[in-house]
Amino acid sequence: MDMNYNGKKVPDVVIKRLPRYYRYLGEFLKQGINRISSGYLSEKMNVTASQIRQDFNYFGGFGQQGYGYNVEYLYKEIGAILGLDEGYKTIIIGAGHLGHALANHTTFEKRGFKILALFDNDPDKIGEVINGLTVYNVNELEHYIKENDVKIAILAIPKGATAEMADDLAEYGIEGLCNFSYVELESKKVAIENVHFTDSLMTLAYKIKRKAGLDNE
Amino acid sequence: MDMNYNGKKVPDVVIKRLPRYYRYLGEFLKQGINRISSGYLSEKMNVTASQIRQDFNYFGGFGQQGYGYNVEYLYKEIGAILGLDEGYKTIIIGAGHLGHALANHTTFEKRGFKILALFDNDPDKIGEVINGLTVYNVNELEHYIKENDVKIAILAIPKGATAEMADDLAEYGIEGLCNFSYVELESKKVAIENVHFTDSLMTLAYKIKRKAGLDNE
Repeated sequence: MDMNYNGKKVPDVVIKRLPRYYRYLGEFLKQGINRISSGYLSEKMNVTASQIRQDFNYFGGFGQQGYGYNVEYLYKEIGAILGLDEGYKTIIIGAGHLGHALANHTTFEKRGFKILALFDNDPDKIGEVINGLTVYNVNELEHYIKENDVKIAILAIPKGATAEMADDLAEYGIEGLCNFSYVELESKKVAIENVHFTDSLMTLAYKIKRKAGLDNE
Repeated sequence: MDMNYNGKKVPDVVIKRLPRYYRYLGEFLKQGINRISSGYLSEKMNVTASQIRQDFNYFGGFGQQGYGYNVEYLYKEIGAILGLDEGYKTIIIGAGHLGHALANHTTFEKRGFKILALFDNDPDKIGEVINGLTVYNVNELEHYIKENDVKIAILAIPKGATAEMADDLAEYGIEGLCNFSYVELESKKVAIENVHFTDSLMTLAYKIKRKAGLDNE
């Protein structure tokens, strides 16, 4: 399924490239680079300039041909398209090792996601504070989500518990699930992004076999 | 950069879809489904049948039109294309929370990656056993990699240490790096797959904003 942007159909593969553009543009800004050509962007990101222009055209093009792109403008526009200016309030379900790692992942905040708390059902973990975030009892989820207007939940729980938890969270008002439970989750009620670590290793295996060397995604 | 398969250029986006096909086919096999139509695959995976045919055509097509696909054959073929039959020996560098989570991630083994050990420079962690895997001192890396013919290293270390570690590992004989250090790593010597958790959250934010609902990747 492709997703619309201002009435235009945007292929999923294009949407999945936006975060990468956003990251690179953020780096350029940090380095004090204010204007870039599509050639420069192409070289740095290892994608063709024509691909970049094609991608950007789904969103109106952004740039002035011949003058290159204004980095800050492009960064803000792509951020807005991605919805990063919404400041989505986010919680992490599961305070095991993966939950810990995610709670310590400071890049989320940098990208505009406000991580508020963790939740677990293990009495030994409830009350723990990880990177300044408290671990609450999962039975407080409904109250907490409604009280704090939480929109995103990151799932780092065993896969057997995932489907039921997803239903509950949708009912409590969560709008998006980032699922690290290694099970393919589907829902008609909330947006879902399934993360599969093994997919990265499998893609890597292909690259090794084909002696492809460089990463380009 | 696109990667060749039998002399044909395969776009990176197609390669990145192969692991997902592989996962779904593995599920069908488990369910005892031996033959599928592209329509069935299309419905289950939420991609168009024409996309599936287009993707498969890069690798010779696989199927008999009208008879559908033999699931086991397709599963094995895609696995071989991905290089999963190589049984790549794999180590994890970094035994913090993320390293723990990765060491406990049993799906790696299921996909043909043999996780052998972890490595860390923290004396408190060295000697620890996680999910049956010993944590060794990073100063044993060179010896261990050469002795055990390790081909893949998963990086779960602070990003400041990543570039130097990548150079060392390439020198010791590692052929592929799966990088969870949240820094964009590049190398001319080894294949690299950079994993960015934040990209998943950003894609999710887009889906929420466009009320796209279902996941399709």
